[in-house]
Amino acid sequence: MAKIALLGYGTVGSGVAEVLHKNAASIARKAAEEITIKYILDMREFPDDPFGDLVVHDFSIIEQDPEIAVVVECIGGATVALDYVRRALLAGKDVVTSNKELVATHGHELLMIAKQKSLNFLFEASVGGGIPILRPLTSCLAANDLTEICGILNGTTNFILTKMFKEGKPFDEVLKIAQEKGYAERNPAADIEGTDACRKICILAALAFGRHVYPEQVPTTGITAITGTDVAFAAESGMTVKLLGRAIRREDGKICAYVAPHFVPLDNQLANVEDVFNGIVVCGDAIGDVMFYGRGAGKLPTASAVVADVIDATKHHSTKKFLDWAEGGPDVVADMAALPMRWFIRTTESLLRIGKCFGDAEVMSRVIDGQVGFFTPKMPKCRVDEILSGGFSAAAPIPILA
Amino acid sequence: MAKIALLGYGTVGSGVAEVLHKNAASIARKAAEEITIKYILDMREFPDDPFGDLVVHDFSIIEQDPEIAVVVECIGGATVALDYVRRALLAGKDVVTSNKELVATHGHELLMIAKQKSLNFLFEASVGGGIPILRPLTSCLAANDLTEICGILNGTTNFILTKMFKEGKPFDEVLKIAQEKGYAERNPAADIEGTDACRKICILAALAFGRHVYPEQVPTTGITAITGTDVAFAAESGMTVKLLGRAIRREDGKICAYVAPHFVPLDNQLANVEDVFNGIVVCGDAIGDVMFYGRGAGKLPTASAVVADVIDATKHHSTKKFLDWAEGGPDVVADMAALPMRWFIRTTESLLRIGKCFGDAEVMSRVIDGQVGFFTPKMPKCRVDEILSGGFSAAAPIPILA
Repeated sequence: MAKIALLGYGTVGSGVAEVLHKNAASIARKAAEEITIKYILDMREFPDDPFGDLVVHDFSIIEQDPEIAVVVECIGGATVALDYVRRALLAGKDVVTSNKELVATHGHELLMIAKQKSLNFLFEASVGGGIPILRPLTSCLAANDLTEICGILNGTTNFILTKMFKEGKPFDEVLKIAQEKGYAERNPAADIEGTDACRKICILAALAFGRHVYPEQVPTTGITAITGTDVAFAAESGMTVKLLGRAIRREDGKICAYVAPHFVPLDNQLANVEDVFNGIVVCGDAIGDVMFYGRGAGKLPTASAVVADVIDATKHHSTKKFLDWAEGGPDVVADMAALPMRWFIRTTESLLRIGKCFGDAEVMSRVIDGQVGFFTPKMPKCRVDEILSGGFSAAAPIPILA
Repeated sequence: MAKIALLGYGTVGSGVAEVLHKNAASIARKAAEEITIKYILDMREFPDDPFGDLVVHDFSIIEQDPEIAVVVECIGGATVALDYVRRALLAGKDVVTSNKELVATHGHELLMIAKQKSLNFLFEASVGGGIPILRPLTSCLAANDLTEICGILNGTTNFILTKMFKEGKPFDEVLKIAQEKGYAERNPAADIEGTDACRKICILAALAFGRHVYPEQVPTTGITAITGTDVAFAAESGMTVKLLGRAIRREDGKICAYVAPHFVPLDNQLANVEDVFNGIVVCGDAIGDVMFYGRGAGKLPTASAVVADVIDATKHHSTKKFLDWAEGGPDVVADMAALPMRWFIRTTESLLRIGKCFGDAEVMSRVIDGQVGFFTPKMPKCRVDEILSGGFSAAAPIPILA
């Protein structure tokens, strides 16, 4: 029998307990032994909860209990969680986490400790909720040299953009609906400003390309500036608006990673990923494009990914897994501002001025909200910014997913 | 250094050699050792091929060479391939195969031998070409009780149906185009009659539900009877036509598996899987629906899945993988004819007769090619067949994906 400890008994933690309990028999068969929760660490008490009597308040009880083989971290953040995860690994316990902030900022360090101690440090649930993505990326696609990862990584913003597109409602109104439905937090900043997607693309980039990419190295634009006008222009041109996290390996080996809203042509698979769903496209030299699609968040989907990692850790307790990436650094990343892309720009400037500044721009015939929309030829963001700061008045340019 | 032998040097076999050669450095890093091909077994000679000097014609050379750790079977079929795979396992070698016929018909036996000898028998490439599906199914989704697998499993038929739908061309004409493009074989029977999809759903069902489902237990209808009229009715009702393989676990634990063309609503993710692409939806109790999407066939995508298995076998040579399913039998499967579904039927019978025979049928207003199209209420196929054989004249009913 494998005994585990849960750190944090919020949404994900209680979901993990629920899945372990509900599917106990099949999980035991797959792990080749029974998996039971021995402790739940939380500051609160849960007197009416079926697992309430497992609650402890002192991490050192878990740390010092040799029976505990796997510690499951569902606290979130990178302060207390970092301390506990580090100590759990140093105490010789496998660790499973759903905490993207922790992995995106301290993944390399924690993987190093796990490697030195021959332990598992697994975090499938940190990206894409329950969608299997990290393990396929590292094992099933291992024969490929990967060139790009591009995905809708945040369900809340995708819900908002889908509703803006389909129902023509403005951002603020849709955000309120998302909050009422429980899809968005009362403080929605991490979602709508792109921070959550940024952490996830960091983890994906590190696994795909082998070097840690830190969140502060990833230029991140959220969706707060997207208006009904942008959405109407997208629809007019056979596209939709999606918040994408992208990581591209350039030919010189450097990684270009960023998060930004994009215009996405409707015949692109990512355009069909709607509401709170996530879709992640991985591009490899042998496989071409592969997409993984499903619920990117939510109690049970996330818990399902955590429990799969717990099963894996239990099965491979003696043989460590091969998750690994090297340290990051300024030499790892390339500036996304140098990446040539086409851009959508809306403006009140004259056609003459558009032609003069952008050359072969493709101007849309319909004027929307008194503005003209156009697509630039392929050009780097730094060049677009140069033109705009040179006095060409326009809303923030939005890149087109080719 | 791990030495491997390739059996069969056709499309997949030569793709495997190409990927192993091209991405040798990153593959060696992931496998933690170099992987080299020592033998290629084929009846032919390849004097101008860079690997031509590795060709042997006698399997026993490979069988008796203790240096060979992994045998990669790319011969196809279930006669010679079965003999060699069995002998390779008995000789203590891990086996990787892309052969769906072999796995669908003899998977249980071969997995048993592998288990007894503590060897890997891996076959990711047998379903979905390069799309990671079998490993995610068995590991990443291990916390779930799976309830259904439903997928577009054959690229050739999906190409044909997509072209019929988008360009309104008849079946025969599109089949010819598919053959010209190399998507369909000169003898396209295995694709268009559903045999290929049938083998794949057998493998998926066995992995998902733990019991071998044999191809002869899976009622299979191909796409040869689908006409432009069906496609026009589908379009008229906001749907498209897709050949789906489905495996459903009923509440009594029995598996209901079949292959048939379906009407699929355009807002369903599977409706957006076009051309030669495959899409496989897995439904679990915790995760909900997850979809895997990509190129389901082709030299390099398939080779990429084979090589990922070779890397895995090399890394886990001492610790066998947990792929496993129990023997099949008549008690495992349930008759799909009892599954309640809605059906599309086109007929020249009167509205009065439709109402009398099918009760609450939803009749489409537009008459196409002199026929009326309607959707039945939810009812089992056996009941529909009963009505039709009772003298209600109609084209073959097509189920609706709910």
